[in-house]
Amino acid sequence: MTPWKQLSQRYIFERLPFIRVAQQTVELPDGKILEDFYQVHLRSFATVVPVMEDGTILTLRHYKHGPGRVCLGLPAGFIDPGEAPIDGAKRELLEETGAVSDDWVSLGHYVDNGNQRGCNGHYFLARGCRIIQEADSGDHEEMTQHCMLPEALDEALKSGEFGVVHQAANWAFARMYL
Amino acid sequence: MTPWKQLSQRYIFERLPFIRVAQQTVELPDGKILEDFYQVHLRSFATVVPVMEDGTILTLRHYKHGPGRVCLGLPAGFIDPGEAPIDGAKRELLEETGAVSDDWVSLGHYVDNGNQRGCNGHYFLARGCRIIQEADSGDHEEMTQHCMLPEALDEALKSGEFGVVHQAANWAFARMYL
Repeated sequence: MTPWKQLSQRYIFERLPFIRVAQQTVELPDGKILEDFYQVHLRSFATVVPVMEDGTILTLRHYKHGPGRVCLGLPAGFIDPGEAPIDGAKRELLEETGAVSDDWVSLGHYVDNGNQRGCNGHYFLARGCRIIQEADSGDHEEMTQHCMLPEALDEALKSGEFGVVHQAANWAFARMYL
Repeated sequence: MTPWKQLSQRYIFERLPFIRVAQQTVELPDGKILEDFYQVHLRSFATVVPVMEDGTILTLRHYKHGPGRVCLGLPAGFIDPGEAPIDGAKRELLEETGAVSDDWVSLGHYVDNGNQRGCNGHYFLARGCRIIQEADSGDHEEMTQHCMLPEALDEALKSGEFGVVHQAANWAFARMYL
C-alpha cells in the first residue's frame, strides 16, 4: 500500500482563524498526477464525555448552527493556539459545565474526512467529575446542563438527538470504556 | 433555547463538486449580528459496517490522504447527485468489497461540525452480507479487504488504527446493535 506523494501545496482561500483551503498537486501510486486535490483546514477541537461520581453523564443541550437545530451535545470547543489538546478539553469542561476531573482517558484523535481532511479532533473521557463552580461558557453560547444515565444516552444517540458527529462519536467511543 | 437567525448567505469560494464556502450573516438570540460566520459544504457521503453471515466484520485497509497514512477503514464514499443515501451505501459496499446485504439498519445522519458544518454523513449497518463479485473500487483507490472479529475491531479502534472519524464512529455506532 503506497502513500500518495504530495508534490506541492498552496493555500488558495483563507479566512483565519476559521478556515483555510489548500490546493495540492499529488502523485498517485500508479504515477498519475492530480493537480486539483483540495483539503480544508479547520481549527482543531477537543470534546469530552464527563462521567460524574454517581455514574451519570453530564450532557448539554444547545443550539448549534452547523446542524441548524437545538441538539444534545457534550463539552467541546476549539483548542487555543499552543494549547495541548488535554488542556483544551479541561478548559472547555470547566467553562461549559463548571466540572473538573482527575481521571482522564484519551479516546484517540482523528481527522474528519478521508480526502478533504477537515479538522483534527481530540476525543476524551473524564471520569469521577465533580462540579466546583458555575458554568460560564462565554459569548454566543446558550446551553443547559443535564445529567443522564448511560442507557438514556444510548437511546438518545439511537434516536438522533445528537446533532454533530463529533459528539455522537465521543459518546460511542467512551461507552467502550465504561 | 433560541435558534440563530440566518439573515443572508453568499458563496465566497467554490471548487465544485469538491467544496463550497458560505459566508453568512446571522443574528444571535441576544440580538448581536455576526457578519462573518463561515460554513464549509463538502459532498455528502455514506459509510457502512458490513457484517458477514459468519459474524465477522468486513473492513478495508487503504491509504487515505486526509490523515495522510495507511489506515483501517470501512466501505464508504460520496453520494452521487440525486442518489438516496442508502443506495450510495449499497453501491459503495458492492464496489469496494463485492458484497451485498438484504438487512440494512440506518445508524443516523450527522453533519461533521457544530459551527462550520462540513459534510453530511449517512451511517449504516448491513447485516448478513455475502460476497457476490470481485471488488472493483475504481480509480485512485488501492485497498485490501479483511474480515475481523468484533473484539479485534474494538481493539483496533482503541489503538488508533482507524484514520478517519467517520469510519471509527460508524463502527462505534454499529456495535450498539450487535
